Amino acid sequence: MMLEHVPLARRAERAVPSAIREILKVTERPEVLSFAGGLPAPELFPVEAVRRAFDRVLARAGAAALQYGTTEGHGPLREWIAARLSARGRRVTSGEILITSGSQQGIDLAARVLLDPGDAVIVESPSYLAALQVFGASEARLVTVEADADGMLPSSLSRALEGARPKLIYLVPDFANPTGARLSVERRHQILALAAAHGVPILEDDPYGELSFDGPRSPPLAALDDRGIVIHLSTFSKTLAPGLRLGWVSAPPGFLRRLAIAKQACDLHTATVTQRAAAELLESFDYDGHLARLRTTYAARARAMEAALHAHLPPSATFTPPRGGMFFWVGLDAGVDVDALLRRALDARVAFVPGYPFFATPPARPYIRLNFSNRGEDDIREGMARLGRAM
Amino acid sequence: MMLEHVPLARRAERAVPSAIREILKVTERPEVLSFAGGLPAPELFPVEAVRRAFDRVLARAGAAALQYGTTEGHGPLREWIAARLSARGRRVTSGEILITSGSQQGIDLAARVLLDPGDAVIVESPSYLAALQVFGASEARLVTVEADADGMLPSSLSRALEGARPKLIYLVPDFANPTGARLSVERRHQILALAAAHGVPILEDDPYGELSFDGPRSPPLAALDDRGIVIHLSTFSKTLAPGLRLGWVSAPPGFLRRLAIAKQACDLHTATVTQRAAAELLESFDYDGHLARLRTTYAARARAMEAALHAHLPPSATFTPPRGGMFFWVGLDAGVDVDALLRRALDARVAFVPGYPFFATPPARPYIRLNFSNRGEDDIREGMARLGRAM
Repeated sequence: MMLEHVPLARRAERAVPSAIREILKVTERPEVLSFAGGLPAPELFPVEAVRRAFDRVLARAGAAALQYGTTEGHGPLREWIAARLSARGRRVTSGEILITSGSQQGIDLAARVLLDPGDAVIVESPSYLAALQVFGASEARLVTVEADADGMLPSSLSRALEGARPKLIYLVPDFANPTGARLSVERRHQILALAAAHGVPILEDDPYGELSFDGPRSPPLAALDDRGIVIHLSTFSKTLAPGLRLGWVSAPPGFLRRLAIAKQACDLHTATVTQRAAAELLESFDYDGHLARLRTTYAARARAMEAALHAHLPPSATFTPPRGGMFFWVGLDAGVDVDALLRRALDARVAFVPGYPFFATPPARPYIRLNFSNRGEDDIREGMARLGRAM
Repeated sequence: MMLEHVPLARRAERAVPSAIREILKVTERPEVLSFAGGLPAPELFPVEAVRRAFDRVLARAGAAALQYGTTEGHGPLREWIAARLSARGRRVTSGEILITSGSQQGIDLAARVLLDPGDAVIVESPSYLAALQVFGASEARLVTVEADADGMLPSSLSRALEGARPKLIYLVPDFANPTGARLSVERRHQILALAAAHGVPILEDDPYGELSFDGPRSPPLAALDDRGIVIHLSTFSKTLAPGLRLGWVSAPPGFLRRLAIAKQACDLHTATVTQRAAAELLESFDYDGHLARLRTTYAARARAMEAALHAHLPPSATFTPPRGGMFFWVGLDAGVDVDALLRRALDARVAFVPGYPFFATPPARPYIRLNFSNRGEDDIREGMARLGRAM
């Protein structure tokens, strides 16, 4: 098979399979209680409402729903997103919204438009694994800045901006993957000011912001941005259903046009039928009521995991209970071999994701990431008991 | 808006909006009979069957259809595609099929895995515009080879292979966009032998192969390839519905894995719900009967366009009636200014696409591309009469 021996592009040589993807394959055995993935709770998907939405769209406008569409996306869906984002403080029209095939595509498009090989990108340490993969495939140079429970440290960002002349700052402000941290409002202003002073765009990836357990959420950086420096990404994957692959980018019109040109070469446009079904759904569906149910359920699961971690993990394990999102990030003793721990955990029929793939530079101590959105409270208690025994 | 002034990546600077996309915006006025797009006939979409398929999938396996899926794609859909491709002579298992977000994504993924900036890619002249855009955004160097009504000329390919040390040969073997040409079987063998001798992979883009008017279609290059050198792309966009955004790649397993790693960074995976609906549809739908109806209708429209072109265009206009696909490719007198002609045509309420964007190197004479799949025979006759008056 000659194709298996042809020379690959540098970006393909640098692209590595997701460590998580390999781990998920191992943990797919039904007897394993897996907390490894980043999956929402399937029992909370609004299946019936989605079914009715597809049915109505195909019954009423079937030919249009199955035809090619514009690269920018379905007008009514862009309008709904623009209105919701405007209500959160970023005043935009639908012309400033590009529909993407999940927010993952938004990261990729921003990289395509902004990054040449060798360019520096600032990321938190640790950071979202699939964003690190995009930047790696763009042959970018990753510059890490420190973060704590309140998110990226402005002092660390400031030093990085002085040294690296980066092309982009990537961050997840709310309930970051993997740490669960939420960026404080004070730091949001500081980071915006630093980025503006250095003329460096911010890629704000906001998949989890709607999953805040404790009342009104913080304003996105995009809403605080009066200089047009924030590219804002979000998605329906965590709030409606990831299988629709519907995300969006909000950016100033001239820059959005560049993203749309890049998207056209990638996949022409996102599926017309899923876009129209989502627009149809959102016309009548109680989205905020649905989000309230998600938050209540996920908050209870997070409390169950917190209590179970206290009950079953050694006292040296550290974690900050997240105030939203989907993940606990647990620090372990420096001597722990997390790969060996994962093997013991799988023997005990429980799974997690080792923390090291989320670091662009090696961490000082081992971590594990635990998802709490995809399992009920009883499973969480039983799973953490198994994990405790494996330790 | 600072983002509108930040320096862009070289690949974004090189990416240009599709000329067709700009023209389509102009031609969207309802009074214009447009033959500019590459749209299938919406009245032939199997809307009811698609509606029932979505309904059954969401009623029976709603949670799975709305959850994340694997990057490679939904198993039963990959199996259906593998079986159909095997019946056409390329014996593959589902492990050699990657589901993509349209075949456009297959072109992009192949470019990501194989092309570094400056690498040479061999394309026919003229060639599919959106493929040229992908290669341009990859900062590839385009090397054009000549083609005639039987497709790419092996003698011209041979010279290009000697000179350019290319990384990839891109071609559309059946009913190419824009020319409508079909590569002869003899040339398929010759091109495969040349590519193998030089160790250069072939990217075979086959969106139109099922739309053959005159009986059994030619074997795809992939079916004649005994050296594992062909990456085969196809799609449901021209046979079922483009709005589903469902295409696929077939390639040897080790290479397919590289494509899947690249796809994961692009969009994680193609929508689960559309993949499952397509698999559900194909279980019971008479796909071959549907294709037969498409072929009959499109063949009649092609005959109507051929007759109308003879009736209304000046005798100096040249074209070879296509034996399948969606397009007539019409050569005009060397002195014709096609942009001026398009303006006159729009005044006469008819639209086409100028040929020059399809050329990587300027053509010796002007061309226009006319689509015949998207309009009924009466519209085709009236449209060509208007075009004749504009000339």
